[in-house]
Amino acid sequence: MKIRLSTLALAAATLTLGAALPAAAQDADSAVEARQSAMTLMAFNIGPLVGMARGDIEYDAELAQAAADSLVHVSMIDHGRFWVEGTHIENRDDTEALPAIWEDPEDFASKLADLRDAAGAMQEVAGDGLAALQGELRNLGGSCGACHDNYRVSDD
Amino acid sequence: MKIRLSTLALAAATLTLGAALPAAAQDADSAVEARQSAMTLMAFNIGPLVGMARGDIEYDAELAQAAADSLVHVSMIDHGRFWVEGTHIENRDDTEALPAIWEDPEDFASKLADLRDAAGAMQEVAGDGLAALQGELRNLGGSCGACHDNYRVSDD
Repeated sequence: MKIRLSTLALAAATLTLGAALPAAAQDADSAVEARQSAMTLMAFNIGPLVGMARGDIEYDAELAQAAADSLVHVSMIDHGRFWVEGTHIENRDDTEALPAIWEDPEDFASKLADLRDAAGAMQEVAGDGLAALQGELRNLGGSCGACHDNYRVSDD
Repeated sequence: MKIRLSTLALAAATLTLGAALPAAAQDADSAVEARQSAMTLMAFNIGPLVGMARGDIEYDAELAQAAADSLVHVSMIDHGRFWVEGTHIENRDDTEALPAIWEDPEDFASKLADLRDAAGAMQEVAGDGLAALQGELRNLGGSCGACHDNYRVSDD
């Protein structure tokens, strides 16, 4: 998308920026909090699937299906507003997000699309038995890792 | 070999019993964190709708629709596991949830159903103009308030 800035528009943008700084800061805080909330809900719902796959908890078709359905819903939330420009680790101490997110937004968006696909694939089979769940978990976990590896500070 | 395994099994069982309490506490912590994350995402997506309805921000059909779609998805997450027995304000200092939630679980569940209905109704019209959005917002806000009034500590 190309944005043409006329002199008038530039003046307006400057005025807007001046008036909007506190609001923008609030928006950034809200966006960081919201995306971290989405990640919390991802973890909360991947947890039972991993637990069943590993045998830590007994396979439960209803729980597996509910968790997979929930993952789909979390992935389908509008994630676009989560990633306010500049809300990365070099500017804030409350995030592990890397600047790379804004350097290659198309690739970043493709990782979310992969997650949605993987969550959808898990949703199709999660209630069909432990083996089916285990068969899809690598793909789902891979879609998490593919994004974290490139766009989040390493836990190492 | 058999004796060794049995000894190990007994040791494992003892460890498991010993570890069970912290695990349950961890589940409760995760549930509280997850439900608060869902509420954060609700607020993050109701925010733009309220802002537009009040005229604080300009009506934007695409944003309104994305926010309403997101509300539906958050409402459709499995909320059942959020409400671990006893995770209320009398037992924890990190929640505003009232014991009443577990005293009338059917009514509590009906409030979530009402929220889902209200979010779905907003989803139907959010992109159809400001007047349509404003027309549904009272219903949506009412569904939030109906639950908070009965099951969350008053902000007053």
